[in-house]
Amino acid sequence: MKRWVIGADLGGTLIRAIRTDLDGRKLARAEIKTQAQEGPEAILGRIFEVIGQACEGTDLSEVLGIAIGAPGPVDEQGRLFDPPNLPGLREVSLRERIQDRFQVPTFAGNDGNLAALGQLRFGAGQGLEHLIYMTIGTGIGGGIISHGKLVIGARGFAAEIGHQTLDPDGPICGCGQPGHLEALASGPNIARRALERLDEGASSTIEQYREAGNELTGKSVTDAARHGDELALELLTEAATYIGLGLVNLIHILEPQRILLGGGVSQAGELLFEPIRQTVHDRVMSPVFRGVEIQPAALGKDVGLMGAVALVLERSSLN
Amino acid sequence: MKRWVIGADLGGTLIRAIRTDLDGRKLARAEIKTQAQEGPEAILGRIFEVIGQACEGTDLSEVLGIAIGAPGPVDEQGRLFDPPNLPGLREVSLRERIQDRFQVPTFAGNDGNLAALGQLRFGAGQGLEHLIYMTIGTGIGGGIISHGKLVIGARGFAAEIGHQTLDPDGPICGCGQPGHLEALASGPNIARRALERLDEGASSTIEQYREAGNELTGKSVTDAARHGDELALELLTEAATYIGLGLVNLIHILEPQRILLGGGVSQAGELLFEPIRQTVHDRVMSPVFRGVEIQPAALGKDVGLMGAVALVLERSSLN
Repeated sequence: MKRWVIGADLGGTLIRAIRTDLDGRKLARAEIKTQAQEGPEAILGRIFEVIGQACEGTDLSEVLGIAIGAPGPVDEQGRLFDPPNLPGLREVSLRERIQDRFQVPTFAGNDGNLAALGQLRFGAGQGLEHLIYMTIGTGIGGGIISHGKLVIGARGFAAEIGHQTLDPDGPICGCGQPGHLEALASGPNIARRALERLDEGASSTIEQYREAGNELTGKSVTDAARHGDELALELLTEAATYIGLGLVNLIHILEPQRILLGGGVSQAGELLFEPIRQTVHDRVMSPVFRGVEIQPAALGKDVGLMGAVALVLERSSLN
Repeated sequence: MKRWVIGADLGGTLIRAIRTDLDGRKLARAEIKTQAQEGPEAILGRIFEVIGQACEGTDLSEVLGIAIGAPGPVDEQGRLFDPPNLPGLREVSLRERIQDRFQVPTFAGNDGNLAALGQLRFGAGQGLEHLIYMTIGTGIGGGIISHGKLVIGARGFAAEIGHQTLDPDGPICGCGQPGHLEALASGPNIARRALERLDEGASSTIEQYREAGNELTGKSVTDAARHGDELALELLTEAATYIGLGLVNLIHILEPQRILLGGGVSQAGELLFEPIRQTVHDRVMSPVFRGVEIQPAALGKDVGLMGAVALVLERSSLN
């Protein structure tokens, strides 16, 4: 009898896995450093290791399935295209290699897409048919649920929702293109804007981070905003306005019922959500689009792992 | 036995209807002026009239279904929200009224969404799972097919793909918001840019249209470009660049296999398609997105009507 599901997540820093029952209750977890510089076979070995640890004490014949999420464009075979921090994995089918190793049905997908599925099944989007999940952190990504199903596109590369051009004259994105939402509102961008403003002579409590020799991050700006720092509040509002414009595009294109925001920058809470909601209210093309709910995502740091569990359950006929 | 399908289209100028067999072969057609100023009940009367004409000589019990497309946000009941040229229809369910009148299952939708469905079943997107249709004319709209199904969103308002912000400092769109694709690349916008450039002293054969007292349109610019007019070519390329940027956003969000372009402006052909394809090639975030085909739509002026027929066939269990 099938009793367990394994969800795994391959990140640039950590590889993680959990084991849950068929209702998504977490029963075991494991993690290990990725050490990507050691190359694809070493990474695969460590993926096997954490999955093995998550399965410890169980019979593999009782595992319904395994799913693994990974960053950037990932096809359904679990091949990573252009992984910025995980070179050398383009020719490797994670799906096939894991399935061969454990002899358990295995699935793979982009971590943002899986996170959306996790929100739908276990998180803040349960019962909805039309849902967008956006993570705003070092980068901006996400996933789309439309008519109750995950939208992965022709080969699994869809929902790169941080890579919308919002300003053709804007800063260059990590992907090399100008003016993407990610380049205007990600954590590192908020920090970069803070440094620019300080260099221009703005006065702010953020200055103390630099004076103490600390690296300025999106979180430093958010913390300062919470303490009422005016420059920090202004920068958060600026980022929120771009996020709001990106959400308006997505609302016009997909008409979701709800949008969930996760990732480090979303931890700023109402300081970010309030100006995002205001921008959406003001900038939709018609009042018919004003009903879309914009809320914090659930599941915290396990969003990707629970998304992988949700993928197994979605793809398994048992369910 | 069910033998016929009725597709209808409510436009600001004309109401049209066709009757086809279950394979989409056209057997009858009818049209009438909308005369929207006479109000919703008069419009409904004329809708009944053209549908009646398209059904002439058949037994209504042999009609599988009727579908009607209409511009702007339209819900599944066929209520028109914010119809710019069709005031007063917000409270009227076209679906219900037509169904009551003819006693035949009736469906309704946005004309751009239906056109995408028409391309999928009868046009230039047959056999595909992931398809975007964009019409570029007086406005810019379209429809999305994802995983083989029409994406209509929570209430039927999705796929307003002309209303993406591409330049926050851009011209004001017909919807009232700044810098939308529609405000940067629709026919009237291309004409407006031409007038601006002439006023700034640009030299062009387009000037003769003004001198002859003719209204300058997108088509005048396209015609001049075909004859090698440099300003006209520059303006088309400018519009194509914005269209390309809008398509790149859609490619990143939805990863279609093919994008089909229709509408009056698309008649410019390669003068428009070549710079669009170049922009897409240059501006996608990763080479994995370069394989998307960008081609002319099929079905000409009947695209909306054939889309309505496709909607009946999609929604009818017979099929």
